[in-house]
Order: sequence, then structure tokens, then C-alpha cells
Amino acid sequence: MRTEKDSLGTLRLPKAVYYGIHTQRAMDNFPITGEKCQPEMIRAFLEIKQAAAKVNAAAGDLDPKIAKTIVQVTEQLLTSPLDFSMWPLDPIQGGAGTSLNMNVNEVLANLANERLGGQLGKYQLVNPNDHVNLGQSTNDTYPSAGKLALLRLLAPLKQSLTTLIDAMGNQADQNVRVYKMGRTQLQDAVPMTLGNSFHAWLKPLLRDLARIEVSEQALHQLNLGGSAIGSGINVSYHYQTHIVPKLGEITGLELSQAHDLFDATQNLDGLVALSGSLKGLAVNLSKIANDLRLLSSGPRSGLNEINLPARQAGSSIMPGKVNPVIPEVVNQVAFEVLGNDATISAASEAGQLELNAFEPVIFYRLFASITHLTGAMNTFCEHAIVGITPNKDRLAKDIDLSASFATAMAKIIGYAPATKLAKQSLKTGQPLREIAADSGLFSAEDLQHVFAVEEIVINARTPEHGLVLRPLSETTTD
Amino acid sequence: MRTEKDSLGTLRLPKAVYYGIHTQRAMDNFPITGEKCQPEMIRAFLEIKQAAAKVNAAAGDLDPKIAKTIVQVTEQLLTSPLDFSMWPLDPIQGGAGTSLNMNVNEVLANLANERLGGQLGKYQLVNPNDHVNLGQSTNDTYPSAGKLALLRLLAPLKQSLTTLIDAMGNQADQNVRVYKMGRTQLQDAVPMTLGNSFHAWLKPLLRDLARIEVSEQALHQLNLGGSAIGSGINVSYHYQTHIVPKLGEITGLELSQAHDLFDATQNLDGLVALSGSLKGLAVNLSKIANDLRLLSSGPRSGLNEINLPARQAGSSIMPGKVNPVIPEVVNQVAFEVLGNDATISAASEAGQLELNAFEPVIFYRLFASITHLTGAMNTFCEHAIVGITPNKDRLAKDIDLSASFATAMAKIIGYAPATKLAKQSLKTGQPLREIAADSGLFSAEDLQHVFAVEEIVINARTPEHGLVLRPLSETTTD
Amino acid sequence: MRTEKDSLGTLRLPKAVYYGIHTQRAMDNFPITGEKCQPEMIRAFLEIKQAAAKVNAAAGDLDPKIAKTIVQVTEQLLTSPLDFSMWPLDPIQGGAGTSLNMNVNEVLANLANERLGGQLGKYQLVNPNDHVNLGQSTNDTYPSAGKLALLRLLAPLKQSLTTLIDAMGNQADQNVRVYKMGRTQLQDAVPMTLGNSFHAWLKPLLRDLARIEVSEQALHQLNLGGSAIGSGINVSYHYQTHIVPKLGEITGLELSQAHDLFDATQNLDGLVALSGSLKGLAVNLSKIANDLRLLSSGPRSGLNEINLPARQAGSSIMPGKVNPVIPEVVNQVAFEVLGNDATISAASEAGQLELNAFEPVIFYRLFASITHLTGAMNTFCEHAIVGITPNKDRLAKDIDLSASFATAMAKIIGYAPATKLAKQSLKTGQPLREIAADSGLFSAEDLQHVFAVEEIVINARTPEHGLVLRPLSETTTD
Amino acid sequence: MRTEKDSLGTLRLPKAVYYGIHTQRAMDNFPITGEKCQPEMIRAFLEIKQAAAKVNAAAGDLDPKIAKTIVQVTEQLLTSPLDFSMWPLDPIQGGAGTSLNMNVNEVLANLANERLGGQLGKYQLVNPNDHVNLGQSTNDTYPSAGKLALLRLLAPLKQSLTTLIDAMGNQADQNVRVYKMGRTQLQDAVPMTLGNSFHAWLKPLLRDLARIEVSEQALHQLNLGGSAIGSGINVSYHYQTHIVPKLGEITGLELSQAHDLFDATQNLDGLVALSGSLKGLAVNLSKIANDLRLLSSGPRSGLNEINLPARQAGSSIMPGKVNPVIPEVVNQVAFEVLGNDATISAASEAGQLELNAFEPVIFYRLFASITHLTGAMNTFCEHAIVGITPNKDRLAKDIDLSASFATAMAKIIGYAPATKLAKQSLKTGQPLREIAADSGLFSAEDLQHVFAVEEIVINARTPEHGLVLRPLSETTTD
Repeated sequence: MRTEKDSLGTLRLPKAVYYGIHTQRAMDNFPITGEKCQPEMIRAFLEIKQAAAKVNAAAGDLDPKIAKTIVQVTEQLLTSPLDFSMWPLDPIQGGAGTSLNMNVNEVLANLANERLGGQLGKYQLVNPNDHVNLGQSTNDTYPSAGKLALLRLLAPLKQSLTTLIDAMGNQADQNVRVYKMGRTQLQDAVPMTLGNSFHAWLKPLLRDLARIEVSEQALHQLNLGGSAIGSGINVSYHYQTHIVPKLGEITGLELSQAHDLFDATQNLDGLVALSGSLKGLAVNLSKIANDLRLLSSGPRSGLNEINLPARQAGSSIMPGKVNPVIPEVVNQVAFEVLGNDATISAASEAGQLELNAFEPVIFYRLFASITHLTGAMNTFCEHAIVGITPNKDRLAKDIDLSASFATAMAKIIGYAPATKLAKQSLKTGQPLREIAADSGLFSAEDLQHVFAVEEIVINARTPEHGLVLRPLSETTTD
Repeated sequence: MRTEKDSLGTLRLPKAVYYGIHTQRAMDNFPITGEKCQPEMIRAFLEIKQAAAKVNAAAGDLDPKIAKTIVQVTEQLLTSPLDFSMWPLDPIQGGAGTSLNMNVNEVLANLANERLGGQLGKYQLVNPNDHVNLGQSTNDTYPSAGKLALLRLLAPLKQSLTTLIDAMGNQADQNVRVYKMGRTQLQDAVPMTLGNSFHAWLKPLLRDLARIEVSEQALHQLNLGGSAIGSGINVSYHYQTHIVPKLGEITGLELSQAHDLFDATQNLDGLVALSGSLKGLAVNLSKIANDLRLLSSGPRSGLNEINLPARQAGSSIMPGKVNPVIPEVVNQVAFEVLGNDATISAASEAGQLELNAFEPVIFYRLFASITHLTGAMNTFCEHAIVGITPNKDRLAKDIDLSASFATAMAKIIGYAPATKLAKQSLKTGQPLREIAADSGLFSAEDLQHVFAVEEIVINARTPEHGLVLRPLSETTTD
Repeated sequence: MRTEKDSLGTLRLPKAVYYGIHTQRAMDNFPITGEKCQPEMIRAFLEIKQAAAKVNAAAGDLDPKIAKTIVQVTEQLLTSPLDFSMWPLDPIQGGAGTSLNMNVNEVLANLANERLGGQLGKYQLVNPNDHVNLGQSTNDTYPSAGKLALLRLLAPLKQSLTTLIDAMGNQADQNVRVYKMGRTQLQDAVPMTLGNSFHAWLKPLLRDLARIEVSEQALHQLNLGGSAIGSGINVSYHYQTHIVPKLGEITGLELSQAHDLFDATQNLDGLVALSGSLKGLAVNLSKIANDLRLLSSGPRSGLNEINLPARQAGSSIMPGKVNPVIPEVVNQVAFEVLGNDATISAASEAGQLELNAFEPVIFYRLFASITHLTGAMNTFCEHAIVGITPNKDRLAKDIDLSASFATAMAKIIGYAPATKLAKQSLKTGQPLREIAADSGLFSAEDLQHVFAVEEIVINARTPEHGLVLRPLSETTTD
Repeated sequence: MRTEKDSLGTLRLPKAVYYGIHTQRAMDNFPITGEKCQPEMIRAFLEIKQAAAKVNAAAGDLDPKIAKTIVQVTEQLLTSPLDFSMWPLDPIQGGAGTSLNMNVNEVLANLANERLGGQLGKYQLVNPNDHVNLGQSTNDTYPSAGKLALLRLLAPLKQSLTTLIDAMGNQADQNVRVYKMGRTQLQDAVPMTLGNSFHAWLKPLLRDLARIEVSEQALHQLNLGGSAIGSGINVSYHYQTHIVPKLGEITGLELSQAHDLFDATQNLDGLVALSGSLKGLAVNLSKIANDLRLLSSGPRSGLNEINLPARQAGSSIMPGKVNPVIPEVVNQVAFEVLGNDATISAASEAGQLELNAFEPVIFYRLFASITHLTGAMNTFCEHAIVGITPNKDRLAKDIDLSASFATAMAKIIGYAPATKLAKQSLKTGQPLREIAADSGLFSAEDLQHVFAVEEIVINARTPEHGLVLRPLSETTTD
């Protein structure tokens, strides 16, 4: 064991750990989730510390030898897998992230000390606060690291979403002439195509992508240089004007400094907006998953319009049962994201004055929303969407038996008389086609048009009802 | 009493009512809230019916005399205050809004009939379905009317928000050199200005305005012409291509037709995104209201940094008490909007296949969010923000007694020694200024800078700590 | 116009109104929803004022003539329909309800004054604060009135829920031997009865009723006598010990005084728990509504297992369409209640120190949850549940064609071989019954048992698989 | 690598793993959170499998040698730390938990096989479905295992909550005569004691404990014996009547079998109610944490009424700063629990017909709510509550300077005159005591009572205002 000292007193730590007294206190204070901090967040912190060391050295505020060593140890950590014995902290922590910032400061100071011949826990050569944290505050580094982590995690989410949209587009193309009954309120309405369905599923996802990209923009703006509360106290002019560009250079991300650092330090509205966009995506994914589970219901006592790929035996007791397990996992992630959005809104609302002390839980749940959605969309695309096939016989039979042609009839004979024929068909089970023919209300040509599915599924007709004016290819593409 | 008949049978209605059997059935079916439909929604429906009559007549699908009469009666209704005896329906209704659509169809048919010499409840001359509803479905008219209503209600909301932002900007200007303590986690941090506070409050509102404007764009896209499920069944080519431009002409709004009418009929993601933007605004307003209530707490046993205008006696029992009633009403509306967002997300997720049957509750709560936020911001601005005054003596005294100058000291003597002096001051109550002078650790010039509030509240300093590099006017303006 | 004066200055009011200056200020301050306060809340306030007058008179603290007059005017108001020109306030108000309390105090003072020969707006004879409000604070009267109102509104809700449960019980009895396919994850599972379904729907409602009754208990405990913050300041011993019993006598409700009046004044956990119970009911109702919409889907391209009563024509364009409008309205109310619960939790969490200033929005949304749920359950029961009928042919056919008998086979031949037969049936369309017979794997007796639906739907069997051990009547009744 | 086969085909698995093909498929299907299933859930599954083996053997349905081996391997696993190489599955999984059930079946079958001389992946001797899963379905084992896990996790939560309540009770006792200002709406109201505060904080927690215990009761009722959908298909009479008692014996928990197994299989309302109770606890904890952060704000520019124990240095940049990190972590967990409740309600509402396929996410978030709340309460109690100390000088000074005595004056001179004196004091800064004395409105004895804090903080007074009628010890204890 070794002993360290801070303003509250001394504490014993394991001899060989790279973290220090502040981290140790935080471990005792926050035994909440049993999880560790998000790796991307720790990496982003390391990049910030590296940038700060470089900028502070250039400003003449930090001994070049210390700066060089800090750069070396951050580089070493950034190019290796994370060693979580260095990063023992819980993601939910009080103190607005001070503990994680100090954890990083301490690990880097100890590593740098070691490299310069010093001992663990003795910070004479490199000090966590005075050197590693120079020019910084948790108030600016923690949210900045969080935003970098979000940017890194959003990239695969967007890729996953794009791939999903493409897969749905392919399905739309393949099913552009597969006719099926359309429904409103789960009741038979009028015919459409399965291609229409896939287009109607993918369009909101395209908008989700756009909305996420808009929300993402706010993440590129950092409050580094604001130090405590955005005041920029103890921050040199050189540091303040160079820290963000330097970090942009190190990370390869397009970063800018917020104009109003007080604003950027206390307000998390950009994260609320991002969470809102993710919630929107979740709502749409859940609706699609619901539709797929419904259309693939059966096989005998369900709609059975489409087949999802069989991914695993469905039951430990019912032989031959196959369940829509992939859409089901999508629904569950969607419900989780809905809840995370509630958490994030509540935590954001609770911010007071110059800081929101609840940033840790906000990032924690945002990371969960993003990574879980990414995983869910990956499996949704690969294990469900690409393998969907239609049951064409069932689809055709359903249209044929439906009373939905009454809507086309109404155009010719009026709403009330068409209702009468439709009800007669539903009551007797006699196909509407036969009843219509028997009724003497339609000319032969009328009948041909009324029961021409391919005409009905076109978006509009001339008054002569029949001429295709907006061909399918047009109606189903933006 | 009179008797009407539909496909389900006959029903007796009050003799003189302008609505018909469908409305009557809906009144019996949906006795839920006791409220009436949003007036803007009914007006939007009237505009749609007028546009449809004009377009159908131009297409040759509707007898010009009937069309003209429908136009006349819609015009008459649109230019008068709403007579709610015609519009008895509850805003929460099953049937995805069919009841409200039919209510409008029936009232217009009866009014037109009457004008043409017919009787109430006899629809020979003008039929609700075949004439008034021609080319339309509830599937396309209901969400289109809802979107028009939202656009009309968002205009005053945006105005109200803009006025609020301006008022805060004025306060920021007036308080640009009013120094105060900044706090993180409710603990004394470092000095700043009240102008910084106002800027930090108004900036997220500026972004909310921008986010609402982005969300609003989706409302300009209508699915009229899609009729049932977006198929455009029974819709003439002329109608489909002219209905939206005609409606734009009538309403004076920039409207366009959705490219994919199936998508536009079943997906309400645009409304979820709008609600998300409103929730974001609510979260920010609530945070501001919380801050104002905190800063005005007291008068004796509180922070007492600012004064809110006294708006009403605060207590029925405690004489002289004045409460922050205006911020409190803002908080409450914010909490309501948070809940509305949960409702809207749940209802949107529940949409199935080609239609979301839960549109009524979505519009109902969106209307509440918008109108309540508008009212709350109006009173917030007029009755609270514009009249806020600082308690300069208290503010100055708090800074003077604070240990926050230790942060500026740390730049010179290091974090650990500065901590020691700060703790000494907090323990003994002796001002840090005196302790610092006694310590012998600072030159006279150092001391001058360390305790120069006006320097601390600048965002950054040269290494010589003192030269103002980013003047206040710059740091507090975007 | 007349002029009144309070500690903030003078204000002009309409000459003939019964409310006074505090109400007028509140009207200007809180133009939020456009709605009026809940009538039950106003009535409860009147009862409290009547009780207070009686108790204060008995204590010798209030002139008997004034007390008598206050009692007379409250009695007059309580026995007439509410005249909302007296009660103009918005339900969402800042000030923790002070405005409504003062509205009541002012109206009663003016009415009493008038009766005693005084003038409106002159409070010499009867003073709103010193007489009507004697011994009270908004801190104790407002939440107490709210709780009384909740009790009054919960009575019809419980009645409505009980009636709904009974109706479902009747349906369970009527359908106790109507066999149908059971499903898990929307995939065919094993047979059951429609009676089982109704039982499985009503059971959670029974538990909801019990949970609501538990939550309701907290409403009987009032903090009257606590005056400001629960301190009981300015409250006489007589008043404090007699006010709640007197109110119980007046209202006919079983009421008790909270033991710890500080606790009872600042904590609204009982309301959060009540809202949670209502949310639980909403979740269950929504699940049932979803199931009913699913089982009644079709009529041709859906499950079509049951018929909901036709309540209105389902479409303005599609003839003969009938929609599940009643379950749909139930879903929507459920979504609203979910949102209200989020609002109520947020508002409760935001309470600070000795008072929760956000009581108004909490009661506002609780009232909405209760009354809307009551309306929804009424229409659900009357217009949907009682009229449900099964489509027995369809149900029988679905069972007959299902591969679900494979589960019963597995008991005899093992899971893997049964899977093989089931998949063969699903692939070829040949009934499992025939395939099983052809397989040679089963004795004639085995076959008889495997395909005996009435045996499968029993909860357990002897090893000889066949003897009914827990007859239906037992399994389906608690 | 080894190869296994199921009804979907063959798959290659690592040679030495104890799980089988179903688990492997699930690993590929559900790469969502990167986390593992809750250990208590896996242990509960093992107990269920052990109970089933014993009961099936006793019923004569399972070879005693196989049963004995299954019992042995479950015993071995239950008495060792979990080896997560056996339990690789993600907690969020499609299939309603079938994957975890099959994971357990496969591991036990392989372990049993191995023990009996068989090979991994060859299930001739012990079959996962036919032997380990005998008499069971995922439909009954998964929710039953989840409930057992909840019961195990609730025990430490209740212990933690009880300890917290006790600690608050001790603080209440210690501070029973520490006078302080009470506030409503953050504005000075009337005096009270810090003991009152602690009582008002602990009382809702006492009710939370009671509410959680009520919710917990539902967890003791299991649907074991219901197999698929609650039908009890393939379940022997002996198994059905003995499985739950046997499990009770093994686990040491009081367990009973649900009366209606269909109900118990499809409805998760008990879990929604439990989550609601936990949300209620979270709301109360968050309110308390907010109050503590507020009362300990400062030290100079805040209320500074109490001191929280210093737990860690508060800032990486501001020397001497100490933050309320422990209440802050409590707030964050509370926000998370609010979100989890939204997730759980949404997932419960989404259940369809005879099963809720979304049980996995419901248990996943319930486990998080419980364990995180437990951790938060532990640290809250140990590191914050027990060490709180009052700043008596500050508290006394605040009372002395307050205008709150005006309330006591109003009792004597009326509300309006008292208001005038209070406003005069607030305006001039002259203590109300002096102003009152100067006013000539009070007798000496009156003055003594009006400013007697110890009288004010008593809940009620005789008309002679002064005699203590309900001593502190009574008012502050239930």
C-alpha cells in the first residue's frame, strides 16, 4: 500500500495502481452501477490532455520536458487497448465528472512521473492539477470529452442506419409489383404493394438520419478554454485560442470553440436535442418492428403475408415454432431509448446556474442509446430485413376476397350503394366481384376497372379511371 | 327530433342541429374529456373542404352549383366566430379523426342544402360523402388539417419566444458590468457578471427557436391527394395535382404535396420531432425558471441576488410574502410539455401499418404544448423578465467575502498552496484578501491582479495575467 | 368598474364580480390553458371554508354572525350549479394554489358582505384573509381540497372499472368453451379458450382496482391545521383538533389529520403513487384494447376471431368499413395517462423544502387522468366489451389447421421428432393430424389424446395424458 | 470447433464451451449491450431446473439417474462463483427469454452429460429440451426466474432504505431543537426545526418502503406449471402441484402458484407496479438530495445552513472547493430510475395476447433500478446523511432577521396591518422586532409571544397563544 494526501487528508491506496487519491475517494463514493466509463470517453480525455500539454508548452506555461512526457504517455495509452485497472470509476458519479477528469490527470501524472524516474503517488515531477490539468477545468474537459465520444459513437450508428435504409430500398425494389391489402386501423382498406410498404418504412428513417445529423452538429462545438464556469479563469490567451484547433488536429475531427463559453458550459440542450433525435429513430424502428411482427404472424392463425428469416428455434417446448426474435430485440432497444430520453431530459432540466452537475448520467444514457441502437439496427438489417420474403399466394388471395373494391365502385355508383354491396359480400361470403356483376349497376368496362388491382394501387387516375398517370416507379421514389 | 340513416341503421337527432348522424354517433361513442376540438383545426378543415370543392368543380367532377354553395358556406363559417353547437366533438376520438371529418362534411352538407332549399338531415342535394368529401379521405384530410392548425399556433409561439429572447438580451445589456458570484453545483465558484447569466439563459432559447423552425418545415408537406392509405384511390389526376396548390392559395401558407403519399399517411415522425423540439424548449425554460427562483430566494434567508417584480400577494396567511409565481407557472407548463412528449411518442410508436389511428391524441397534446408554452412565455417575459433588478450590494459583498480568488492564486502559487489559504479563510472567516497579503507569497502587483474581479470575469488573459484580451462585449455576444 | 387595494397597490375590477383583487391579479398572471379549475376542487374548497367557519366560531375566534353568514353562502353555492363567472382562474397557476384559495376567500367574503348589507369589494364586515381564511393557509387548504376532489372523482372511476370487470367476467362465462388458438409473440402456440382470454384480461384490472384503493387511502389524510409549512402557526388548539372531524362530518367522507404536518405539507408522494396506479391501469387497458383490435382485425385479411359491435361508419371514403373506434379511444387515453404520470413525477420531484409549489399542475393532470379514464372505461364497457361475439367457425378452423398439436406429440415422441413432423405440415400444408397418422409413431389412443383440444386446454394432465385434473371451471376462476 | 444441429440446420461452436447451438445462435442474433445477464437471474434459473428435475423424477417422468445428475450439476454451479464463459448472452434478447432458458438447458445438459461420460454437444444421455426443460416452457421459467432474482435484489434494497431511514431518524433526534427558517417557494416563511426537516424527509421514505413491500408481494406468485401460454400443456399433475412448493423449499422463499396461469403468463402488471414504487422512491430521494444541496449551498454565497461531510476535493481547478457529490449521485440514479419506469411501462403495454415478448428489457431495467438505488442509498446514508451538521449561528441569525414573525402578528393585529410592518422591515432593513415595538400595536406580553421562536414551531396553540399543547416530541414522531 502507499499513502497519498489531498486537502481532505491522507488515504492508503494499493501500491502499484496508476490512479491516485482522488480516484480512490471516488471509488468509495460512487459504487453504483458496477460498470466502467465508456472507453471512447476515456480516449477523448487522453486526446484533450495531449492537446493541452502541447498548447501549454507552446505558450511557455509548461516545461517542455513535462509536456513531451505527457504527450508520450497519452500516445502510448491511445495506441493500446484500454487497461481498465487504470480506469476503475463508475460512469454515474457525483461531482459533474471531476472524478473522471482527476482519474485521467492522476494516471497521466503517475505514468509521466514513472517515465521521468519518479515514484507512483509522488507528484513532484509531474502534478495532476498543476501540469496535466493546466488551463483546464472539469467544467470544460468533461463535456468536451463527452462530445468527442458521442461523435465517435455516432459514426457507426449512422453507418448502420444507412445500411438498413439501403436494405429496405432493395426490398422495395424487389417487391415493387407484389400486391397486398393495405389496412387502416387493422381493418382491410384498399390494395397497395409490398414495395409501397418498404418505402413507407424507410422514408422516416431517412428523415431520422437527417435529424441526427442536424443534432450532431452541436457536438462539434466545445467549451474548452472556458475552464471554471466558462470564465476562462487561469487560461492563457495562447491556450484559449489554440486548444480547440490543436484538438481538432489530434482527433481529425472538425471542431470549433463555442462563442459564449458560459452558455456552452451550463447548457446541455444540444444533448437533449440529440437524445430527442435518437428517440425519434427508436419510435420509427419500433413501429417498423411492430409491422413486421404483425405481417409475419401465423403461420396458420395470423396474417402470414411475409416471412422473416428463421434465426433460432422459437420455443423450448413447442416444436417447429419460429419467433420474430430480431424485431423483438429492436422493440426492446426502442423502449430503452424512450426511457433514456426521459432520464436525459430530467437531468438536463435539473442543471442549476453555471453548471449541470448531472452530465455523467446524461452521457451514460446517451452512450447506451447510441450503442444499443447501433447493435439493434445491425442485427435488424442483417438478420431480418435482407431476408424477408413475401407469401405471394396469400397476398393475392386476400386481395381477391376483399370487399375493398367497393371504394372504387363508390366513384361510379356513390358511397351508399357501394356500402350496400360491400356489406352483402361480407355477410354472405360471396366475392364482391360476383355480387357486382350480378347487380347490373356496372358496365363490363367499369367492372374491369373496378377490380383492376394494378390500377387501384396507382396514386391517381384520370376521370376516365384507368389511365395510369403516376406510374409506380414515380410514386414510390422521392 | 329528426331521423337520419347510415349503414348501421337509423338514429334520432335534435331537429335543428347542423351536424348529422355520424357526428351524433361519435358524441355517444367518445365522452372523454368534455373539451371541444381545437378551433384552428376546424378552420383548417373548412379551408380544405373549400379547396376541394373548387378543385373538384374545375375537374368537372362536382356540379358547379354544389361546389359554389360549399365554397359559400365555408366562407361564411371562416369569417365568423365558431359556433360550437355545430362542433360538439371531443378532441380524443377513435377512428383516426373520421368523426371530425364527417362532422365537417355533415355541417357543410346541411348548410349547403339549406342554402339550396333542402332540409336538414336530407342529403339529396348535397351529400356529405359524395360531394363535400369528394376526392378525400380522413386519412389525408385529418392530418393535413392538423398540420395547418399547428402552423397557425406556432406563429404566436415563435413570436412569444422571440420577444422573450429580446427581453433577455436587453437585460444582458443592462447588466453587462454587474459582477456576481458564479456557482457550480450550488457552491461558490468564481465571479462573473449578471450579463453573462442572461446571455447564458437566452442562448439555448435561440437554439430552441432554430430547432422549432426546422421541425416546423415538415408541417408544410401535406398528404392531400392520397385519400385512403395514400393510394390516391378515387382521386382524379386534376384533383391530385391541384388540391395542395389551391389550399396554399386559400390559406396563404407555403404548402407542398408529399412525394410519397403512403409514407406521408402512416408516419407521424414529423410530429414527434416537433414535440421533441417543444420539449427541449420546455427543459430550457424550466432551467431558467429554476435559476430565477433560486437567485431571487429570500429575501433574508436566501440568495437574494435579484428581484423579480412582485405580481401578487404571496400568501393568504403570511403578511408581506411575495412569491416567484411567474417562474412557477413556467415550470409547471414545462412539466406538462414533458408529459405530452411522452404521450406523443407512445401514440406515434403505436401506429400500425398504413395508418396511425392515434392522431387525435397526438394533435390534442401538441396543441396543448404549443398554446400553454405560448401563454407561459408571454407571462414570463412581460411579468418577470423585463422587470428583474439586481441587488448590487449583496452581489458585491458576496464576491468580496468569497474564497474564489484562490483559483486566480493557484495560477501563481500552485493548486495545493492555494487550497491551504482558501481553507484557512473559510475556517476562520478572515477575508482571503487579508490572508493572502499576510502570507508573503504574493507581490503587490500579483495581489492586485488576483483580486481584480473585472479581470477574472474576462474569458482569457495573457501570461502576464491582466491584459484584457477578449473584452466583455465580445465574450457575451454571439 | 370598482377599485380594490392590496399590499402591491390598487387595481380596477369589473363592478359586479364576486371575486376580488387577488383573483384579478391571478387572471392577468396566468393566462395559460384557457380552462377553468375542476368543479370538484372548488366545491371541496367551499366545504373546507364552511368547516373552518363553524370551528372558528365554536372556538370563539370568529364572530358567530360572520361565521353563520359564511356557512350560509357556502351552502348556497354548494347546492347550486357552479357559476364560473365567480371562478375565472386557470388550473395551472403559480403560487402553489394561493390564487384559487384567495379566489374562494374573496367570493365568500363578498357574498357574505352582500348578505350582511355590505358592498362588493369592501371587506369591512367580512374579510377574505382575517375571517374566511382564519386558521388556514394555502399550504394546507389547497392540497386538502385537491384530495377531496380526487376522492370524489375516484368514486365513479372505481364504479366504471368494476362494471368493466363484471362485463368481462360475463364474457368469460359465455365463452368458457369457445376454443381458439393461443399465441406467443404473434406466432401460433397452443389452443386455449376465449374464456381464458377474458379472464386474463380482467385479472390485472382486478389488481388495478386493488392498487388504486390502496393509493386512495392516502387521500383521506389531510394536513388541515398545519397552516403555513405545517407549523400550525396562528392555529388555535380548538381549530386544529376539530377542523378535520368537522370537515368529515360535512363531506360525509372518512377523514383524518396527518400525524406529521410538516411531512404532509411538503410531500406529494401519495399523489405520485396514485398516478402510478392510474398509469398501471392505463397500461393494462391499452394492452387489452390492442388485443381486441388485433383479434377483430380483418374482416378478410385479418385474424377475425371476434367481432366488436359496429359503432359508426368507419370511413368517409371506404364503403362498409367498420373500425375498432372504441378500443382506439381507450388506447389514446392510456397514452395520455402515461404522459400525465411523467408530468406528475417531474412536478413532484421539483418540490423544494417545506412546500411543493407545483401542486396545481399535479392536480390538473391527475384530474384529467381520472376523468378521462372513467369516460374511456364507460364507453369501452358499454360500446365494446358487452357486445363482443366470437367467430366460432374461424376459431375452430384455425385450431384444426395448426401445427400446435406437435407440442402434445413431443410429450410422447420427443421434441426433435415432433419438430420434424410440424415442419413437414407447415411446409406441405398437409394437416398435422394426417401426417401424424401416417408416421406410425402413435397408437390410435395416443392420436386421440394428442388432437383432443379439450384436453390440451386443461392446465395439467396425469402421466396417462388424458384425465382432466383441473377442470376448466377451476382453472379460469380465482 | 464442434458442430451442433437444430431444426434450422447445423452450426460450428468452439469445442470446449458448455453452452450449445441455441446459445450460439442467440449470441449472433443479439449483440446489443455488451453486458451479461444478471447473476441472480441465472442462479434462479438453476434453482428452477433443480426443482424440476427433482419433481419430474418423483413423478416418474424422468430417469432418476438423469435427475440426480442434473441436481448435482446445478448444486455445483450454485455453490461456486458464476463462470461467465458459460453465460455469454446479452440481457436484451428477442424471443421472450427463450435464449437464456436454452442457455441454461444446454449448459446443464452438457455438464450432466460430461459427468455421465458423454461428450460436449452430444445430448444422447441428457437432452436440454426433453430432460432439463421437462414440464417447462420459457413462458413460465423466464418470468419465474426473473421474479426470484427481483426478490433477492430487493432484500438489500430494503435493508439499505431502512438504514437510511434510521440514520435520518437519528439526525431528527439530534436536531430536534435546532431552529431554522422554513421556506415556501424558496421564500422565507416561518420558523421550524431541523428536526422537523429530517422527519419530513424520512416519512415519505417510510411510505416508500411500505409501497415497495406491497409491490413485492406479487413477486412471490409464480406461473410455473403453466408451460406454454399458461395452458399447462405437457405438464403432469404431479409436476404442476409440486413444482412451486419444491422451489420454495430449495430457495427458502415463500412461493405460491398463481391461480390463473394464463393471466400470470401474459400480464406483467406486477412488475409495472414494482417499477412505479421504485420510481416513487426515486422521486423522494431526489427531492431530499435537492434540499440537501440547497441547504448546504455556499459556503459564502449560499444558504449554508448545514454542512455535508467533505468526501473529495471538489474541483480540478478551484482550490478548496468541496461539492455535494453524494447527493448529486443520488439525483442521477433517480433520473435513471424515472427513465427505466418509462421503459418498463412501454414494454409492458406492448405485450400481445398470451405473452409479453419484451420481458427481457423489463427485467434488465428493473435490475438496474434496484441495484443502482441500493448503491445510491448506501453511499447517501454512509457518506452524507450520518455526517450532516447544522451551522447553528447562521440558522439563528436568519430567523432573527426574518420578517416571518409578521404571521404571528397577524393573529393579533390582522393581516393587512401586519403586512405593512413586514414590508417596512424588508424595505428599511430594520429588524421587525424593533419596528413592532415602536409601533405601539402590541403589549409587552404580545411581543414576547410573537417573537418566541419556540412557540411558533409548535403545531398549535391555545387561544391565549403560548401554551405548548403538542410538544415537539409529539409533533415530530408518528
